[in-house]
Amino acid sequence: MNNTFGRTVTLTLFGESHGPEIGCVIDGLRPGLRVDEEAIAYRLSLRRPAGGIGTARIEPDPFRIVSGVYQGRTTGTPLCILIPNTQARSADYVNLSSTPRPGHADYTGRVKYKGYADPRGGGHFSGRLTAPLVAAGAIILAALAERGVRIGTHVARCGAIADRPFGDLAADLTALDDAAFPALDAAQAEAMRAAILAAAQDGDSVGGVLETAVIGLPAGLGAPWFDTAEGLLAHALFSIPAIKGVEFGDGFALAAMRGSQANDAFRMEGSRIVTETNHNGGINGGITNGMPLLFRTAVKPTPSIAAPQKSVNLSTGTDTVIQIGGRHDPCIVPRASVVQDSVTALVLLDLLEDGDGQILRRAQNDNAGTGRDTCSTV
Amino acid sequence: MNNTFGRTVTLTLFGESHGPEIGCVIDGLRPGLRVDEEAIAYRLSLRRPAGGIGTARIEPDPFRIVSGVYQGRTTGTPLCILIPNTQARSADYVNLSSTPRPGHADYTGRVKYKGYADPRGGGHFSGRLTAPLVAAGAIILAALAERGVRIGTHVARCGAIADRPFGDLAADLTALDDAAFPALDAAQAEAMRAAILAAAQDGDSVGGVLETAVIGLPAGLGAPWFDTAEGLLAHALFSIPAIKGVEFGDGFALAAMRGSQANDAFRMEGSRIVTETNHNGGINGGITNGMPLLFRTAVKPTPSIAAPQKSVNLSTGTDTVIQIGGRHDPCIVPRASVVQDSVTALVLLDLLEDGDGQILRRAQNDNAGTGRDTCSTV
Amino acid sequence: MNNTFGRTVTLTLFGESHGPEIGCVIDGLRPGLRVDEEAIAYRLSLRRPAGGIGTARIEPDPFRIVSGVYQGRTTGTPLCILIPNTQARSADYVNLSSTPRPGHADYTGRVKYKGYADPRGGGHFSGRLTAPLVAAGAIILAALAERGVRIGTHVARCGAIADRPFGDLAADLTALDDAAFPALDAAQAEAMRAAILAAAQDGDSVGGVLETAVIGLPAGLGAPWFDTAEGLLAHALFSIPAIKGVEFGDGFALAAMRGSQANDAFRMEGSRIVTETNHNGGINGGITNGMPLLFRTAVKPTPSIAAPQKSVNLSTGTDTVIQIGGRHDPCIVPRASVVQDSVTALVLLDLLEDGDGQILRRAQNDNAGTGRDTCSTV
Amino acid sequence: MNNTFGRTVTLTLFGESHGPEIGCVIDGLRPGLRVDEEAIAYRLSLRRPAGGIGTARIEPDPFRIVSGVYQGRTTGTPLCILIPNTQARSADYVNLSSTPRPGHADYTGRVKYKGYADPRGGGHFSGRLTAPLVAAGAIILAALAERGVRIGTHVARCGAIADRPFGDLAADLTALDDAAFPALDAAQAEAMRAAILAAAQDGDSVGGVLETAVIGLPAGLGAPWFDTAEGLLAHALFSIPAIKGVEFGDGFALAAMRGSQANDAFRMEGSRIVTETNHNGGINGGITNGMPLLFRTAVKPTPSIAAPQKSVNLSTGTDTVIQIGGRHDPCIVPRASVVQDSVTALVLLDLLEDGDGQILRRAQNDNAGTGRDTCSTV
Repeated sequence: MNNTFGRTVTLTLFGESHGPEIGCVIDGLRPGLRVDEEAIAYRLSLRRPAGGIGTARIEPDPFRIVSGVYQGRTTGTPLCILIPNTQARSADYVNLSSTPRPGHADYTGRVKYKGYADPRGGGHFSGRLTAPLVAAGAIILAALAERGVRIGTHVARCGAIADRPFGDLAADLTALDDAAFPALDAAQAEAMRAAILAAAQDGDSVGGVLETAVIGLPAGLGAPWFDTAEGLLAHALFSIPAIKGVEFGDGFALAAMRGSQANDAFRMEGSRIVTETNHNGGINGGITNGMPLLFRTAVKPTPSIAAPQKSVNLSTGTDTVIQIGGRHDPCIVPRASVVQDSVTALVLLDLLEDGDGQILRRAQNDNAGTGRDTCSTV
Repeated sequence: MNNTFGRTVTLTLFGESHGPEIGCVIDGLRPGLRVDEEAIAYRLSLRRPAGGIGTARIEPDPFRIVSGVYQGRTTGTPLCILIPNTQARSADYVNLSSTPRPGHADYTGRVKYKGYADPRGGGHFSGRLTAPLVAAGAIILAALAERGVRIGTHVARCGAIADRPFGDLAADLTALDDAAFPALDAAQAEAMRAAILAAAQDGDSVGGVLETAVIGLPAGLGAPWFDTAEGLLAHALFSIPAIKGVEFGDGFALAAMRGSQANDAFRMEGSRIVTETNHNGGINGGITNGMPLLFRTAVKPTPSIAAPQKSVNLSTGTDTVIQIGGRHDPCIVPRASVVQDSVTALVLLDLLEDGDGQILRRAQNDNAGTGRDTCSTV
Repeated sequence: MNNTFGRTVTLTLFGESHGPEIGCVIDGLRPGLRVDEEAIAYRLSLRRPAGGIGTARIEPDPFRIVSGVYQGRTTGTPLCILIPNTQARSADYVNLSSTPRPGHADYTGRVKYKGYADPRGGGHFSGRLTAPLVAAGAIILAALAERGVRIGTHVARCGAIADRPFGDLAADLTALDDAAFPALDAAQAEAMRAAILAAAQDGDSVGGVLETAVIGLPAGLGAPWFDTAEGLLAHALFSIPAIKGVEFGDGFALAAMRGSQANDAFRMEGSRIVTETNHNGGINGGITNGMPLLFRTAVKPTPSIAAPQKSVNLSTGTDTVIQIGGRHDPCIVPRASVVQDSVTALVLLDLLEDGDGQILRRAQNDNAGTGRDTCSTV
Repeated sequence: MNNTFGRTVTLTLFGESHGPEIGCVIDGLRPGLRVDEEAIAYRLSLRRPAGGIGTARIEPDPFRIVSGVYQGRTTGTPLCILIPNTQARSADYVNLSSTPRPGHADYTGRVKYKGYADPRGGGHFSGRLTAPLVAAGAIILAALAERGVRIGTHVARCGAIADRPFGDLAADLTALDDAAFPALDAAQAEAMRAAILAAAQDGDSVGGVLETAVIGLPAGLGAPWFDTAEGLLAHALFSIPAIKGVEFGDGFALAAMRGSQANDAFRMEGSRIVTETNHNGGINGGITNGMPLLFRTAVKPTPSIAAPQKSVNLSTGTDTVIQIGGRHDPCIVPRASVVQDSVTALVLLDLLEDGDGQILRRAQNDNAGTGRDTCSTV
């Protein structure tokens, strides 16, 4: 279904940028999970533009949980989160409706929805819809943390500026949890801010690369055909507006390697099986291998720019020029990092909670009893 | 479901490399499509290793359609294709079962299936399972061709050798249909063959990049959230063994561009709306825009290599060294091109045949009547 | 997914009886459908208890549409309807939480949700959740009416009182649209009211049978295996609280017939193919045949009764007696008729809007062109 | 998807009555289950007509498992079973193709599949397709038996003859396992055979009622909305050809009861919670309550009868008369009992193996640890 993702833990997203409220329904959450409203508010604050970068539109993001939580814990029934839209200034966008903005979904949305979609502020296509994803993500990340799974995303590249690579993952993920700007190297973070501001001053925008690490995942999640761990993650990640590429482990760099360089040798680390390198990003044959899960996404530069651009008038069928008013974000890459965390968390909790994930965890507990392998598989 | 892909047109894959037969069930095909068994045989032949590259194992790939076709046409009921396994030499693999091969799914498969999976030749994980995908793909490609949709994939890079980029797409796709080696530039094809043979002589393997173009697609396929055109394609593409990255349009290169470079300006071409460039690969906001669909995948080098590699003995829980016997393919990239065509075709036919795709096509026919837009949206 | 139904047109239900709001998300609605808020309010009013029958709890059911509608029409994006809960008196229910009420879901809900579900007023199990179903149903019924499909449900039996059978369906459905009490025979309606009041005076409750007719459906909806028209309808209908049986056409009475009595002979009616009888309720081989769709459901008597009943204390693990306070409905059968209409409508619109339904409708339009059958198949 | 059922454990059915082979793919089976080919053969033999009742067409039903089993156990990957069609005499059916048989799916199949379906012997609609369901069922029943779940179905009524009701369920299910004719009372079984033969001599057919009992199920399977235990079972059961009604517990008889009669009082039985009666058939609020699951289906009389029947010629669009040749079964009710067992088993294993079912089982093991309830919930 178009606006629902997941099989066991599912998320259904609804709303339009300038409608009264946007929100989502999360279903399949295990009953009894603590729901920390402050954590939700904190994660929503990370999605907000801040510090001179990002759109001037202030999004305080108050939210309400209207179902699925009782006495501070999930009930196991559908959890609906609502976020009211406030301070939207529709007038900025109204004159765009018959001229599609290049790089945006105005044209494709008009074709798909035959001209009936709410055009204000991008409507259902708006990046604003990532707010409910982030709110849901806060709950899901907590559910994962209970199982020892941690997720973090940094801006690996912003325009021409690169962050340092991941190092000690546990420490890096802790640092990212509290970072005002999601980069590992403070100096590079400063350079990225400068690059964003420079683009803004040019009325232009910049893209970047987001890199995610996940630690604490068991081996055994995913499948060889169709529901590979890579495929499920990629399916969801491409929903993040502006993402145009996903690569796991060394990704496209693997294409230039030989097998002898790309293979990750196994070795014992106590009773655990580990790999000496992680070129495959923690996934073999579509299934997690217990090593850190690592992937990168390509984020294109925000399509809203100040310069006049060629477009067409859909009512008259003639060429025209469009100049986009309103306030826009010169770079969504840093704000998108919490969205990427959330989407990743949704996919992984779904894998952990489905029948296979359950079998997997029980198998780990039963391992001694089965006597099948003398070494732990996790 | 793990081994089923699609919503309206679905494919279920079954079998193991050394079992009696492998196959698939395609459901949701429209009744009345002609099924051309020669076209299936031809596509299967393209998947076979040939000309000194690829494994020495000869795969004649006879196939049988046991249901869903009557008097040469699809019935609309499930179409099951079976391909017998012949000439498998299990002995080559038997001693591997307690020592996982680096880069392969032996270890993760063992965890997921708790030691019960058929280990011979990779079992259900084997690249052999792409044969039914290719057979199904031949039928699906024909169904797409009836609607004017054409798909082709070339080896954009093999090891260090790059093919020329796509040019005149209609001509390039025609050339690829008949190519013994799926590259656009014959000299580069020769250089790629040489690189593969050189790797083989070193007992090593090479990876590459596969690039796919699709022409004739209507605008309007896909959705903004979750079932984006990119996400659905990526979900399926990561099932192709060894694929570790997917990028659409300029993909990761977009991350380094500014918005003013990355946006694709619209203009009228007669009554059609087109874009002047195609940095977005034919997709905006998760929805096709009627321009050619373009994407690339990263194919890692085949993990089976001749050199001894470090691994662990799962029975004893100790470090060990593995040397892989048998005959293996030093580069699957050229053979994988027909698999990539097939997987792409499955996703696109599913999009065209679901309720939304149907609405879309009717809308095109009804366009004059609705008077909503004066210019065609396709 | 547990709280989502449908494949192309889907409905996700959320909320608890005594939470702040309940609601649903309908996805897959075609863009451009007019949304008539008065029709929604009218249908919600039919669900309310009235005229001395039904619970004393007044449910004014104000509702808000927070997404998916723009300028009075569906946008094609998810439509979320919210209904606030008002006037709930939780105190009536609070002491029940450790003693499950016989015939209710208190015990099974506790097992499934491990004690974390909201127990107030039945929580997520409450019949109150049918209000969003009815609101959604009003929109869906309108979408069906645009296609010439009409649905109506009468109380075929209430306790010992039987309504007259359906006669002229078009007239009967029109009468039901405006009926204060959904029975075809006014005298029998009066007798049913009396039977309900008599049960109420005894502190007891009565059940009944609801019979639904659908006219205007094309032939060809459904499938032989698994997604039969009967199976899809039954799947959804059993969600209506208290329904314990579903039968199509003559249903259980068919079990006592011979084939010569049960078969429905075909004949031409002008260029239409019809059947002389309708023992099969408009479905053959799981697929609609163009005749009226007819089915009945068995509604058990409301389990909330005044008399003390044996139960157990889940905290102490001992037998006990429970007496249920609060205000309860001695018969939900008449109120459930609009719920049954809504659920039926959801299933049928889903069938009409999926890929197969679309093919079907196009086939009807194309019929002359194909020359396959000289007689219309609808 | 039309020919696939299930969410975690899925079954995909393919084939036509007179094609080379029919079969199914079962996916999601836990790895390591023993597969007993003799048990499959035995269950297939129960589906065969025997002892003078049933069609004269002999169906030896040899079968092959082509994937998903290794060394006698399930691998956890898709298990494909193939059954060759032998001895089909297509000529008997050929002249029917333009005149639909009353009560059959000839007409609706033609509409749905636009004239392209294989018409021979009912094609994909044929009751022959229940053979793979029964073969799969044998494997699934064994998987359930490992968990202590047992299923049995008897002919509660055949024409006018009624079997005795279920009594001691454990004993009755054991008796049914070995019964040549699936009735509990031998004298009534004899009377049923006589009734079937009498109908056969009249060139007519009889229907009946099948009643199923399931013991050993845990409480907690199912959900309140949409995926109720009743709804999931009914969804699948209506796929059994000729089934036109499903009722749980007292079913339609509940409609005439008062709440005081229909409610099932709880009481402790040692540390187990049980109900004193079972009017609700082991399900409250859509969720199993740990009591035996009980339901009945209405089986219409076989539509193939010897007498001439009115029909239409689809090529000419005129009324005509059809006389059905070939050999047909005067009563499928006894043979359908094993099909009903199989379909029931599929639904229940799917519920036990999905994420919720897994949580449930773990919860039972963890019960002591949580301290939430002092009494067992199963």
